[in-house]
Amino acid sequence: MSLHAVILAGGAGERFWPASRARRPKPFLRVVGGRTLLDATCLRARRIAGPSRVWVVCGREHAQAIRRATGLSASRVLVEPARRNTAMAIAFAAVRISRADPQAILAVLPADHHIPDTAAFAADLRAAARAARAGALVTLGVRPTRPETGYGYIDVGVPVGRAHPRLRRVRRFVEKPERRVAERYLRGGRHLWNAGIFVFSARAILEEIEAHAPDLAAALEPLRARARSSSAELARSYRRAPSLPIDVAVMERSRRVWTLPVRWRWSDVWTWESLAGELGVAPGRSRLLAGDLVYDDGAGNLVWGLDGKAVALLGVSGLAVIDAGDALLVARLDRSNEVRAIVQGLKEKGRLDVT
Amino acid sequence: MSLHAVILAGGAGERFWPASRARRPKPFLRVVGGRTLLDATCLRARRIAGPSRVWVVCGREHAQAIRRATGLSASRVLVEPARRNTAMAIAFAAVRISRADPQAILAVLPADHHIPDTAAFAADLRAAARAARAGALVTLGVRPTRPETGYGYIDVGVPVGRAHPRLRRVRRFVEKPERRVAERYLRGGRHLWNAGIFVFSARAILEEIEAHAPDLAAALEPLRARARSSSAELARSYRRAPSLPIDVAVMERSRRVWTLPVRWRWSDVWTWESLAGELGVAPGRSRLLAGDLVYDDGAGNLVWGLDGKAVALLGVSGLAVIDAGDALLVARLDRSNEVRAIVQGLKEKGRLDVT
Repeated sequence: MSLHAVILAGGAGERFWPASRARRPKPFLRVVGGRTLLDATCLRARRIAGPSRVWVVCGREHAQAIRRATGLSASRVLVEPARRNTAMAIAFAAVRISRADPQAILAVLPADHHIPDTAAFAADLRAAARAARAGALVTLGVRPTRPETGYGYIDVGVPVGRAHPRLRRVRRFVEKPERRVAERYLRGGRHLWNAGIFVFSARAILEEIEAHAPDLAAALEPLRARARSSSAELARSYRRAPSLPIDVAVMERSRRVWTLPVRWRWSDVWTWESLAGELGVAPGRSRLLAGDLVYDDGAGNLVWGLDGKAVALLGVSGLAVIDAGDALLVARLDRSNEVRAIVQGLKEKGRLDVT
Repeated sequence: MSLHAVILAGGAGERFWPASRARRPKPFLRVVGGRTLLDATCLRARRIAGPSRVWVVCGREHAQAIRRATGLSASRVLVEPARRNTAMAIAFAAVRISRADPQAILAVLPADHHIPDTAAFAADLRAAARAARAGALVTLGVRPTRPETGYGYIDVGVPVGRAHPRLRRVRRFVEKPERRVAERYLRGGRHLWNAGIFVFSARAILEEIEAHAPDLAAALEPLRARARSSSAELARSYRRAPSLPIDVAVMERSRRVWTLPVRWRWSDVWTWESLAGELGVAPGRSRLLAGDLVYDDGAGNLVWGLDGKAVALLGVSGLAVIDAGDALLVARLDRSNEVRAIVQGLKEKGRLDVT
C-alpha cells in the first residue's frame, strides 16, 4: 500500500488578481520562498512519494505548462475533461491511480499552499498514511491563527486509539462560520482549520464517494470502461456532474473520517493580506515581490511590480500594489478578500482579456 | 506697438512625475479639458496676438516636438542654448522679438497653466497691454483660493490712475510665505498670487534687466552682435548666466511694476492635488485622466492609466494612481507636493531612464 501524492492544480486563485489569471493561475506564481507554489508543492510531494508516484490533476489549459514546470511524464499529469471542484478531481485521480496501483494510498495536496517546514510536513503525512492504511479518511487540521470566516473548521473529538496516537475523531465540520463564532473557536482551542490536505486509500475514498455522492461516481463510469471511445463520453458525463468540494461531498458525511492535528506553519496564501502576513509585512516594513520599488516612505505595503518598472509609493501604507502589465490593482490589504468580486465583475462584463 | 504672445515652455513639471518626464514635460500632458496644456496655451495666445506674433521659448530637446504640436514656423520657436530660468528666457525672447518688431509688447504666458475662460483672459490681457504701452511692467494677480506656501504673493497697492482703472501699484512681493502667513493673506484679501503671467514692452523689460540684472543683459551680448559666429559664443555666455526667475531678477526690484487683479479661474496645475481640485475630485468622486478604471469603490482618487490596461482600486481614496508604463506612482493627493523629491532622488541615483 504505497503512498502517492496527488497535487490538485485546478484552482484559479482569483483573489490573487491581477497577478493570477485564467492562463496563469495561482500555483504558477512566485510569491514566497523564491519558487512557484507549484514547484514547492512538488518538492513536498517528493518527500513523501517516489518519483513515479507523484501526480498532478489539472485542466487541459494548464496541462502543458504543468508538465514543463514539474518535469512529470505525461501519464502522471491527469487532465480533467472539465473543472468540477475537488470532489470530482479526487474521484478522477483515485480511479486513474487505482488502475496502476489498486492498493494506492493518496495524499491530496493543493498546489497553492505554503508550508515552510517540509520535514515536519513529511513526517505527519506518513503518520496520516498509516491511519489511511487502516481504512480512515484523514484530514489534516491546522491550529487557527486568526478568526478567519472563509475557511471550514473541524470540531476535534476524542483520540482514535493507541495504534494511532495523534489521530482524533471528528465531532463535526463547520463551514465558513460567522465572525463571532470564528473568534470563539480561536479562543477555545478545540477547533482546527480544515486545511484541504487529505490522506486516504483510493479504495476507501471511492467507496465513500459511491455511498455519499453517487452522482459523482456515476459520472466516472466511462472512465472505468477504459474503452478508446470513452473520452468524449467521459467529457459529457463529467460536465454534467455536480461541482462539489470533497468536504461537502464526503468528509462531512462519512463516518470514517479522522483528523491529524498538525503543528507546522501553514498558509494557503489565500489573499494578498494573508500573503502579506506570511511575508511579515507590517507598519514600517514593506515587501517587494517583484519589480523595482524606488521610493516607499509609507511602508507596510505589499508590492508586485514589473521588471525594470519604477514603483514609488508616497504617504500610503497597508496597501497591495499589484502591477501585472495589463492590469493594476491598488487595494487596502485588509479588504483584499474582496478582490474576487472585481474579477467576477470583469468576467460578467466579458473582460476575458484581463481575467 | 503690437501685442506678441511669448509662451514659456522651458519648465520640467517634475511634480507631475511619472506622467511628466524630461522628454515629455508638463506642457505636453493632456490633463484637463481634452487638449494638452501647450495646445490650450497656444489657443489663448492666438486670442491676443496675430499668428505671426505667437512665439514659444523652449530648450533644444523639445523644439521639434513643439514645432510639430503648435504648427509654428521654425523662426517663431526660440530655442534657448541652455535652460536658465524665466528671467533669461524672457530676456532672450525680448531681444529676438525686438529685431522683428522694436515696438513689440510682450505677453508672457507659461505653457502649463489652465485658464478655462479664454474670452475673459483675452480681455484682461488687452487691458494689461494698454498699461504696458504706457511703460509699465504688468503682472497679473490671481485671488488666492487656498493658503498655498509654494507661490509668490503680490501685496496690492493703490490704483495707478484713471487712465488704467483696473491697474494697481504693487506694495511688495512676498515669495513663498509661511503657512500661517499664507492663511492670513487668504483671509485678508489684499494679497494676490503672482501668476507668472506678465505684459510689458520688449524695450521696457530689457531696460529693467539692464538696470537690475546686468549679468543677464551681458550674457545676451553675442545675440545682439548678430554675427554668424556668435552662436557658440552665445551658448557659452548663456551657460554662465545666473539662473533667476523674472520675479526675483526684475519684478521685485523695478519701480515700474503694476498689477492687474483678474477674476477668472486660473490654475498652474501645480501638483496632482491641485489638478484633482481643478477636476473636482472629491470623496465619492474619482476622476480618470486616461486608461480604463474597471473598479473603484473607494472613490476620491485621481487615476492616470494606460490605454487598455485595467485599473482596479479597492478601499482606497484620496490617492493619485499614475501609471506611465515604465514607472508607477501611488501617492496620497495631499502629499503630492513631495513627488518632486522622488524625481530628484531618482536623478541623484542616475535613473535617467525613468525621470
